[in-house]
Amino acid sequence: MLTSEQLHDIVKSALTVVELDNNPVELYQPITYTLNLGGKRIRPVMVLMACEMFGGNVQTAINPAVAIEIFHNFTLLHDDIMDNASIRRGKPTVFKKWNTNVAILSGDTMFAIAYWHLAKSESKVLHNVLSIFTKAAIEVCEGQQYDMNYETIDNVTVPEYIEMIRLKTGVLIAASLKTGAVVANASAEDVDNIYKFGECVGLAFQLKDDLLDVYGNEVTFGKQIGGDIMTNKKTFLYIKALQEAKGEDLSALKKYFAITDVDRNEKVGAVTEIYNRLKVKEAAIELINEYYLSAQFYFDALSIDKERKTILKKYSDNLMNRDF
Amino acid sequence: MLTSEQLHDIVKSALTVVELDNNPVELYQPITYTLNLGGKRIRPVMVLMACEMFGGNVQTAINPAVAIEIFHNFTLLHDDIMDNASIRRGKPTVFKKWNTNVAILSGDTMFAIAYWHLAKSESKVLHNVLSIFTKAAIEVCEGQQYDMNYETIDNVTVPEYIEMIRLKTGVLIAASLKTGAVVANASAEDVDNIYKFGECVGLAFQLKDDLLDVYGNEVTFGKQIGGDIMTNKKTFLYIKALQEAKGEDLSALKKYFAITDVDRNEKVGAVTEIYNRLKVKEAAIELINEYYLSAQFYFDALSIDKERKTILKKYSDNLMNRDF
Repeated sequence: MLTSEQLHDIVKSALTVVELDNNPVELYQPITYTLNLGGKRIRPVMVLMACEMFGGNVQTAINPAVAIEIFHNFTLLHDDIMDNASIRRGKPTVFKKWNTNVAILSGDTMFAIAYWHLAKSESKVLHNVLSIFTKAAIEVCEGQQYDMNYETIDNVTVPEYIEMIRLKTGVLIAASLKTGAVVANASAEDVDNIYKFGECVGLAFQLKDDLLDVYGNEVTFGKQIGGDIMTNKKTFLYIKALQEAKGEDLSALKKYFAITDVDRNEKVGAVTEIYNRLKVKEAAIELINEYYLSAQFYFDALSIDKERKTILKKYSDNLMNRDF
Repeated sequence: MLTSEQLHDIVKSALTVVELDNNPVELYQPITYTLNLGGKRIRPVMVLMACEMFGGNVQTAINPAVAIEIFHNFTLLHDDIMDNASIRRGKPTVFKKWNTNVAILSGDTMFAIAYWHLAKSESKVLHNVLSIFTKAAIEVCEGQQYDMNYETIDNVTVPEYIEMIRLKTGVLIAASLKTGAVVANASAEDVDNIYKFGECVGLAFQLKDDLLDVYGNEVTFGKQIGGDIMTNKKTFLYIKALQEAKGEDLSALKKYFAITDVDRNEKVGAVTEIYNRLKVKEAAIELINEYYLSAQFYFDALSIDKERKTILKKYSDNLMNRDF
């Protein structure tokens, strides 16, 4: 079996040969820029990994893997406009480097290019792969809408937040694993279990992301610390803090999450102090561990030899315990 | 054979049952709004018409027809943001009625929903239909990028302009007809000829649109007259006028197309007067007729009985000679 590093290299090579040397350059330059920003390539690696785990030929999974990675990068590109984010992976976002119109249109084109690669999937799995991909794409958009809604709603609950990140992050990781399994002709039960496993990993992964956005290291994380706080995002940390806060902490939290025109150091510093006092970091870690255990449950149910499973186990453990 | 009115009704019913009663409502309301704005439904009618012409079962063409119409409406939604257009089909555009973020995201979702319907195509044509659709989608984005580029470039030529509208408008009409033909299992030669026919009809159609934007009737056209002039769009009328203009007309044209902060009546009035003097309306009509003749050439080459062709002939003639 190939290692995760080897699968990562296959993804990297496959992305390098994506044909983007087209006209008009104004459209394709931002796409090349976006795909060259790098990133962890988690989703395409997971497509290939699931395919291998179920005894499929990795070559037949490359096109859907590339499609999912291009789609994922498209969503980041459009999300950055909507979130008014200036930095992505340590570099200026497309809408900041170019402009909003360029970002909208090159994003749209990436979405179409993703389908171009998906359409090259083998005929016998095309229908299935297309449905998995498209359902995930729609759900990712729904998740992003909830995310935006929650910016202006005061009383978002933890379950509402969890459903939002399931849609925004969980389903695409789940769909990646499911796609690999489907390409490898896995049983319906295994396909179902690996999808649920992926959802749990995705949820844990996103909660970890929330955590790193406040408690991470700017250099290894590749984003400005406190971005979620600055844009008044109702992350798990905020929702949990709001639930626990009393007196001055409560009014300070509410005050800071009602304004945007404020010094970055002041706001991020003050909110982080409140988070520290209310131990929301610890609550997040606890919830991450819960999803970790659920993921384990679905993982154990997969009807394949333990040694074939090791690679995905190691890879997903690493994701849930990362500091980058 | 079904009439174009009957095909239009089939499209209308099919669009009515598109499931959009989902959450979050903030995402789906603008989609429902957009699809309910109406419009001529040219592209889906053409999918069904081509299918019928080549002896296919119209029922098998409904899903790709709906997909193409949803995609087309998605492009309009995003184009309106990029063009800063406030009115579409007599109603406020989505980004004006809601906001830019909602317009971006509901547009993205429409693109995915389009694929959801496309994926329901019959297995034996799925690969082909998917490729036609995706190639057209990418080209439409390329066309929109050229369109935006030309807003700030001084010396756009007529051939450059024609290539832009071929991409932006021609290819989707061509792809609609091609899709219908493919679903009906038409010969490769017929598929090729109906595509080229569609491109010519699309070009004539767009040139007619340019003409109506200046010389149309606001009520029947459903848009504010002079929108292209106000946004400094290099339409055929402008490019031709710039080529022909001398002295005061030339400097006035250049002056007006370098500014946006100007009274609407003044700008549209002055530019229209110049257009009148330079007879660019007549030049546009001549070019429309040229594409009409080319369309006729490809149409005649289609290997089907003349009486089966009548419906598409009548429908496309009507499009090229419309005043709405």
